[in-house]
Amino acid sequence: MTTRDDCLRLDRDDPLARLRDHFIVPDGVIYLDGNSLGVLPRATSARVQQVVQEEWGRGLIRSWNTAGWIHLPQRIGDKIGALIGARPGETMVADATSVNLYKALSAALTVAAHGGRDLRGTKIVSERSNFPTDLYIADSIAQQHGMTLELIEADDLPGALDADVAVLMLTHVNYRTGRMHDMAAVTHAAHAAGALVVWDLAHSAGAVPVDLNGADADFAVGCGYKYLNGGPGAPAFVWAHPRHTARMDDAQLRQPLSGWLGHAAPFEFTPEYRPGSGISRFVCGTPPVISLAALEAGVDVFAAAGPLGGIAALRTKSIALTDLFIRLVEASPVAPQFTLVTPRDSSIRGSQASFAHAEAGYAIMQALIARGVIGDFRAPDLLRFGFTPLYTRHVDVFDAVRHLVEVMESGEWKDARFHARAAVT
Amino acid sequence: MTTRDDCLRLDRDDPLARLRDHFIVPDGVIYLDGNSLGVLPRATSARVQQVVQEEWGRGLIRSWNTAGWIHLPQRIGDKIGALIGARPGETMVADATSVNLYKALSAALTVAAHGGRDLRGTKIVSERSNFPTDLYIADSIAQQHGMTLELIEADDLPGALDADVAVLMLTHVNYRTGRMHDMAAVTHAAHAAGALVVWDLAHSAGAVPVDLNGADADFAVGCGYKYLNGGPGAPAFVWAHPRHTARMDDAQLRQPLSGWLGHAAPFEFTPEYRPGSGISRFVCGTPPVISLAALEAGVDVFAAAGPLGGIAALRTKSIALTDLFIRLVEASPVAPQFTLVTPRDSSIRGSQASFAHAEAGYAIMQALIARGVIGDFRAPDLLRFGFTPLYTRHVDVFDAVRHLVEVMESGEWKDARFHARAAVT
Repeated sequence: MTTRDDCLRLDRDDPLARLRDHFIVPDGVIYLDGNSLGVLPRATSARVQQVVQEEWGRGLIRSWNTAGWIHLPQRIGDKIGALIGARPGETMVADATSVNLYKALSAALTVAAHGGRDLRGTKIVSERSNFPTDLYIADSIAQQHGMTLELIEADDLPGALDADVAVLMLTHVNYRTGRMHDMAAVTHAAHAAGALVVWDLAHSAGAVPVDLNGADADFAVGCGYKYLNGGPGAPAFVWAHPRHTARMDDAQLRQPLSGWLGHAAPFEFTPEYRPGSGISRFVCGTPPVISLAALEAGVDVFAAAGPLGGIAALRTKSIALTDLFIRLVEASPVAPQFTLVTPRDSSIRGSQASFAHAEAGYAIMQALIARGVIGDFRAPDLLRFGFTPLYTRHVDVFDAVRHLVEVMESGEWKDARFHARAAVT
Repeated sequence: MTTRDDCLRLDRDDPLARLRDHFIVPDGVIYLDGNSLGVLPRATSARVQQVVQEEWGRGLIRSWNTAGWIHLPQRIGDKIGALIGARPGETMVADATSVNLYKALSAALTVAAHGGRDLRGTKIVSERSNFPTDLYIADSIAQQHGMTLELIEADDLPGALDADVAVLMLTHVNYRTGRMHDMAAVTHAAHAAGALVVWDLAHSAGAVPVDLNGADADFAVGCGYKYLNGGPGAPAFVWAHPRHTARMDDAQLRQPLSGWLGHAAPFEFTPEYRPGSGISRFVCGTPPVISLAALEAGVDVFAAAGPLGGIAALRTKSIALTDLFIRLVEASPVAPQFTLVTPRDSSIRGSQASFAHAEAGYAIMQALIARGVIGDFRAPDLLRFGFTPLYTRHVDVFDAVRHLVEVMESGEWKDARFHARAAVT
């Protein structure tokens, strides 16, 4: 079995180890929650200060031009695009993931209806265990269009893709189980059934290789504050295949959040909306400059990873870390108390491992957090551990499992203070 | 006529003058564009750093609870609410103004349809010279519901309020002319005609007294980066009268951006959307914490203004500054070249003055900006000057007019460099 010394050796020999220097991981913390909120990059603080003090403070309104603020949604969008198989100009950073999903789903339905298809009675299909916000947004849109939202299990695919499906909306990597869809195969099956596919990359972008164009995907959205390390509530991104955005030059085809910065010429201040070209019409309101600066600092770390092998190398390390964690837990004396719900097969797994504990998942996680081992809990029973290869070491994985064993063997999770539910779990 | 010494004396005797110390106005700049992007408050930089370095950097995911991140949308919403006649718990900070307008207009239509009214063929009415994003969003929603968007002139009110009007959507203070509607009277007239009213407070919140409850308004949205000094692209806010949000406890009544953080219990992660109580359902995605921190620092300056008379005292000063500017321009040798488009009557005016110059408005503004007098230009012909009483001095007004006269008399605005259009005007 792998020893702690083995892990130290693996870290010493790891060519990606130096990427950890790009982050500020607090002393005494083993952070396995980068799938919820990424760690603070070392460059972020100065970048944000520069934007606040210099660009805003001194430049004031002039900085929309002189500091290039107006270009941030596309500039950062392109940097994210490079991580997800998008070409330059195809990705925009804007708003929150939920808002972008609303735009993308709405736009997908416009495309679906383009050939004269009557959407009433057709379906949006998604996974029952998809992240709830995706389901809430999809349900809202389905109601608007007289459609139904049908929730299935991942195993029901591709069988559930009947002729009534207008849009299939999936999160590439499931937030609970970490199970990952085969994007190209699912997209192909959906297209064969006459459906479009909207992908949520919240747990994929920056974590696993994604090739939106290679998979022939239709629309995608994703999150800036998880594996992209953009900071709490960072702006999200949205992508659409050029075959759709080109088609959408027809003014009849719109996403409904037609805000002024998605206009072809916002500073003409015309009363009629004229959508910008390509993906630019998916921008809505004024870009959140300070948040964008933080996000860009997070995304820029991936540029440093490029010469070390980029996403492919990060993926290899992520699989190694996750495999190691699963192996160590299952070889530990507490193994019988936990059930792995994440696929053992790394080819269908994101960058996390989730274990179910029927009675006390919440309290066990709280006890771990009190020890500085930070994962999270997802009701009703999941302990979720994310492995961000940018800053997680093999020895962190080893120590985290040791803490888990100690928490269980000592019974310290039974302490009442670990059972009081916080507002955010 | 008022002399520069008079202005210095007015500033010396101004009890609000010390509020300028809460801001960092760059040396050599006379900033008359706080109606577009407010000046950096002195406290913002440290506040943002604290959130980035301590709350995010050290607290990481735990800060959602320990630093109260989850409460920011309501906490800051309540602080803004105090400036606009909202009671605690009625206002939320979220998303961009355009996005919030989409929610508010959609919700208003749900309310309008509640009694069984068929919305098809009915109208959303707004002003032709309303800020374009408002019109784009309203048009999008009107199309969704088989309604029409009818654009009128301000003078057409209240006559345009016929029985077919479902919603009247107005910006309280016009972004071009600075003309201000009588919120209570217009709301009353709209209600009498069977219409609901959605107010955009982008140029009102923090600039003029607003009493949403006193005016019996229905819905309101507003902007964080203008008079609230929240920073470029700061999050916006949304308000709804409790008679509507109470009614909306009926799950049939929704705003369509039903994201997870508007759910009654987001961390139960249930697949079905159950809207939160009151205004909380107008939150959609994960709150943008870093931007919210900057916004809160901006809004907190108004607390310091409270003991000095608050919004009422600020309004008195704003009127004095704007009157002074108009008077000095019109008494100057260049007066014949400019036409005032802002109401002379301060009771129907916001906190700005706009002058039209038929041929060269853009170049004149560029020449002023080159001298450090920063206003902005709105196509096709408006020079727009905003007077933020928190940090603008009487002597700034005097000097700005002197620069305007010099720019015109010297002819320096004819220089080619002032005619090249920037991306953002």
